[in-house]
Amino acid sequence: MVESSFRRHRLLDVARYVPHPGDQFPVAAKVKGQVVGLQTYCPENGLFDVEFLTSKDPNSLAILRHSTAHLLARALMRLYPGVQLGFGPSVESGFYCDFALETQLTPADLPKIEAEMHRLITQGGSFECIEVSHSQAERILEAMGQSLKLEHLNTNLKENPTVFFYRQGEFLDLSRGPHVVSAGMLSNFRLLSITGSYWKDDPNRPLQRIYGTAWFKPEELDRALYLMDEAKKRDHRILGRQLELYAFDPRVGAGLVLWLPKGAVLREQLETFLAAELTQRGFQRVYTPEIGRVSLYRMQGNNPLGAESLYPVFEAGKNDSFVLRPTCGPHHVTIYQNRPHSYRELPLRFFEFGNVCSFEPSGELSGLKRVRAFTRNDAHVFCPKDQAAEEFERCLKLLRSNLETFGFKKLRVQTLFRSENGVKYSGSLEQWQWGEEMILRLCKKLGIETFPDGEVHPEGPGIDFVAEDSLGRDWHFGIIHIDFKLPAEESFGLSYFGADNHPHQPVILHCTPLDSFERFIGVLIEHFAGAFPLWLAPEQIRILPVSPKFEEYAHEMAAQLRAHGLRVQTDCRSEKIGAKIRRAQIHLVPYMIILGEREAAQKTLAIRDRVSGNLGNYTLEESVKMFQKEIQEKKPKYEPGTV
Amino acid sequence: MVESSFRRHRLLDVARYVPHPGDQFPVAAKVKGQVVGLQTYCPENGLFDVEFLTSKDPNSLAILRHSTAHLLARALMRLYPGVQLGFGPSVESGFYCDFALETQLTPADLPKIEAEMHRLITQGGSFECIEVSHSQAERILEAMGQSLKLEHLNTNLKENPTVFFYRQGEFLDLSRGPHVVSAGMLSNFRLLSITGSYWKDDPNRPLQRIYGTAWFKPEELDRALYLMDEAKKRDHRILGRQLELYAFDPRVGAGLVLWLPKGAVLREQLETFLAAELTQRGFQRVYTPEIGRVSLYRMQGNNPLGAESLYPVFEAGKNDSFVLRPTCGPHHVTIYQNRPHSYRELPLRFFEFGNVCSFEPSGELSGLKRVRAFTRNDAHVFCPKDQAAEEFERCLKLLRSNLETFGFKKLRVQTLFRSENGVKYSGSLEQWQWGEEMILRLCKKLGIETFPDGEVHPEGPGIDFVAEDSLGRDWHFGIIHIDFKLPAEESFGLSYFGADNHPHQPVILHCTPLDSFERFIGVLIEHFAGAFPLWLAPEQIRILPVSPKFEEYAHEMAAQLRAHGLRVQTDCRSEKIGAKIRRAQIHLVPYMIILGEREAAQKTLAIRDRVSGNLGNYTLEESVKMFQKEIQEKKPKYEPGTV
Repeated sequence: MVESSFRRHRLLDVARYVPHPGDQFPVAAKVKGQVVGLQTYCPENGLFDVEFLTSKDPNSLAILRHSTAHLLARALMRLYPGVQLGFGPSVESGFYCDFALETQLTPADLPKIEAEMHRLITQGGSFECIEVSHSQAERILEAMGQSLKLEHLNTNLKENPTVFFYRQGEFLDLSRGPHVVSAGMLSNFRLLSITGSYWKDDPNRPLQRIYGTAWFKPEELDRALYLMDEAKKRDHRILGRQLELYAFDPRVGAGLVLWLPKGAVLREQLETFLAAELTQRGFQRVYTPEIGRVSLYRMQGNNPLGAESLYPVFEAGKNDSFVLRPTCGPHHVTIYQNRPHSYRELPLRFFEFGNVCSFEPSGELSGLKRVRAFTRNDAHVFCPKDQAAEEFERCLKLLRSNLETFGFKKLRVQTLFRSENGVKYSGSLEQWQWGEEMILRLCKKLGIETFPDGEVHPEGPGIDFVAEDSLGRDWHFGIIHIDFKLPAEESFGLSYFGADNHPHQPVILHCTPLDSFERFIGVLIEHFAGAFPLWLAPEQIRILPVSPKFEEYAHEMAAQLRAHGLRVQTDCRSEKIGAKIRRAQIHLVPYMIILGEREAAQKTLAIRDRVSGNLGNYTLEESVKMFQKEIQEKKPKYEPGTV
Repeated sequence: MVESSFRRHRLLDVARYVPHPGDQFPVAAKVKGQVVGLQTYCPENGLFDVEFLTSKDPNSLAILRHSTAHLLARALMRLYPGVQLGFGPSVESGFYCDFALETQLTPADLPKIEAEMHRLITQGGSFECIEVSHSQAERILEAMGQSLKLEHLNTNLKENPTVFFYRQGEFLDLSRGPHVVSAGMLSNFRLLSITGSYWKDDPNRPLQRIYGTAWFKPEELDRALYLMDEAKKRDHRILGRQLELYAFDPRVGAGLVLWLPKGAVLREQLETFLAAELTQRGFQRVYTPEIGRVSLYRMQGNNPLGAESLYPVFEAGKNDSFVLRPTCGPHHVTIYQNRPHSYRELPLRFFEFGNVCSFEPSGELSGLKRVRAFTRNDAHVFCPKDQAAEEFERCLKLLRSNLETFGFKKLRVQTLFRSENGVKYSGSLEQWQWGEEMILRLCKKLGIETFPDGEVHPEGPGIDFVAEDSLGRDWHFGIIHIDFKLPAEESFGLSYFGADNHPHQPVILHCTPLDSFERFIGVLIEHFAGAFPLWLAPEQIRILPVSPKFEEYAHEMAAQLRAHGLRVQTDCRSEKIGAKIRRAQIHLVPYMIILGEREAAQKTLAIRDRVSGNLGNYTLEESVKMFQKEIQEKKPKYEPGTV
């Protein structure tokens, strides 16, 4: 009864009379599942179909940012008469606004624009929504001299009988909304950069673009600016060069990584770690060639001869074509088929750190994260269907444990499930249902949060692990998925002899624990800001004699520590000890050992932690024990990213 | 004076009047450096130019075998009237004789032929040398009905005014000799096999071929037959399959190794061992891509686009060609050039276990010893010229120590030095002399025997390590050589800044400690006859419960031992313990642990050594200590090849 009286009122007005979680006034609302601004009128049947959205809802932030883009456009109109506005949407981490202007703006112009935006906010004023006919819209845009928007109205929107404008003060803009109601909540923004863009991707129609970010609370904005700044400083391409981890050389080829000695330590340690993790869980290592006959990949269903193939093909021998493999799968299948198998031998679990190639377009190459030749950590389980759940669980535990070792947080799983989108799937609908139910059941059992809609593998259902790094960014790492295709008769036709002495078809699980070593290390560099935990650090310990008198002792201790497998350097330059310590800090060496009069006399080592500072004096034996314990434990001693 | 009286006598007669080392009557002689039979007449100036050769001289064995081939031909003539003789030379390990015969002989015919040869030996008779004119020779061969030899006379020998025949009894054969004097010394031979061959390599003219071996002493023959038998049994292609170490699959491609889990253990252990050896000597690991732009290899002086190149080339991106690399050298050079270097940083020593390709003709592929894709252990030292000797010595010591670890014997060094044979060498004559003198000096210093005439690398002087395996066969393994080419201005143009602050050109040393892992493991399998030392054994320990009652204890102990990094399997079949032990012996597992009533009660392990048998009972802790000690020591516990 009460509700019916709300009809023909705006949601904004109604919202005042209903309670909201945390007493937060809503930003927008969902009506029958559609997100709308609070300017919208209450639906016919009252609040039954209305869900108010506070700032906590992910939709709200996008609305806030879209509105901030409008505010930016309004400021540009006031500061730069004649400016032609393009689009101004919200994007993943903020918003942008495109515009055409004779004057080329520079970063130095941004503070002035920000100031104007803040001035407009102080003036207040609400965002009003106006629905107008197509011809009215034309007249408004002509009057405002907005030729780009007019063009858009008369092309993309030409079939629409009516369109929406949002008005804020003197400023009217063609916009589908939704927008916030009041400009008052827009003050936590920052303009970030000016770049070029194009009107509707037409390279002949260049525009200027201003990027910004916006948040509900000042502390959210501060945190975002801090993280952006960190991400820039920690960019693995910058740190990779500074710390001499890897390099590229145009003579070798774009996207082909040269691992310098210090970066090679990271790779070697990761390979050793992961091989041990896999071996401990019953996986057996294999090595297979990084090439194979083209026909082998045809059996897998790939067509490496396709015009858009990223996998290089070469001729060799008599009319024989080979391909630089994109995956180790077919090779592991040939190992499985090397001899017949009984059910008693299963599951068989193989793993390989296999070199593979994918000749990405040069424009898409990016440091270690997108390269043309890389090393996959590829594991395959061959088992009867009734062992698949146990094996999938084993892989889930492996991946979770691996990612936790590196201090990644908020581990979740994105499900890669079948959807009716025209993809040609292997396996029957029943097989997929069996697999998808199994995956959801296992994640629930292990307490792993799942969320849907990852990019599915047509060979069978699976999951992606998603983990948050120390900058709050989500990364998709490990993959586990079932493969109904490779074992099938029309592909490789795998079998094992069951207890009934008849051949049966096994199931294959694909598992890529850490993606490629290249991409994983690219992320690790940024996650740790180059300050790796002791077991990964290329240089673990630096010995600093306070004067040349203690050089011999330094070399003796270095040799002793190295004999225990520790990676030790000495810095015997004739500099003050403070300068040497500062250099070691910059080089992010986890431990320094300072040797002076007292240490030489006592035969001890003065140990200094990169973060905590002096730890006191220890004997060689105590030191080795302490270092080895930390190396064996692996977990980062400090929050990842502490520098 | 005495000597002149020997003139116009045969060497055979003269030899009676001069002393010979070890009182051995000579087999042949060298006159002015040319090997001749004792049928030859004494030269004009007597014995001044004559050196008698006893059976110890390597030339003598070849003569003995050539003569045995004659004896075989004679036996064939007597047993198979109408046989047409082809050639019958000595070869590395024996001799063969080609012939045309309507009847296809089989191995079952060999005893009959051997018997006839022995009968002819008992008849005695000397090998006589006859020089005849070309036309006389024609008549002789026509009379004997030897059309192949007649054809040879009238083609290859048609310019010769005279030719030689050797006569033994009724048998006359066109032959350049030399031969032994008496058939009496030919009795230590064995016919080995019958295969097909071709007259002068013409595939349209097939012949039959009998292979045999021959020695001076019966015990030499016995040893050779034993070793041949062993080599056959130990053939790594047979053992590789039996022990499930590796496989090939035609779907993947010929010569592309699939390392099965057990073989992968060998590779992993070898890689870990060698990486530690290199690291300990100051080498730093790097990883580089297995491909590179064609232009990179042109800089090195290779032409991967040549018609006969074994290195596959593929196109990728815009008009860019890449090659599957034959070597890691150019990649390591690009790493060196990644930034400028000061003399203070040198020497820089890089190593990589790098995948490389060489598409050998399919006919030349042979198990692991000749493959198309393999992993080189490639090390490069960059240093000023005045550090080169120290670095070369470091490499020599590394290679010697490595090969000794595997129980190889008679380590020697073959020098790879410049000779004036039309090869285009890099570097000046002076540089080569400097390098060659350095190498000889270092080998002398380290007490390493050298012998000359290896296949030289045109880039600079170097050495091959040669080691003898447990079957007495010599293998060329490690390579060290100087490279004057890569650092040169016209190639990569390397430099470092000297103490004078001016750029100087460094020297590069190439070092391949163990060749490719593929070939090295192929040799290791045969050297150890598949019975690897503990640290390499794919399965180190097998636990055998004497009855199902002790299965649980067996699994518990297996888990405990695995937790200490040991590779352990259990055999819980319901079989008698004797059968289980026999199976473990056949599988060449170094240690068995037998668990029964007593062990379960005492909480001990009854350990059985594959070779020595029962070792008694030990606690778990004692056992682990014992195993780990043997693993760490690495040296084979038993003579390699003991099975």
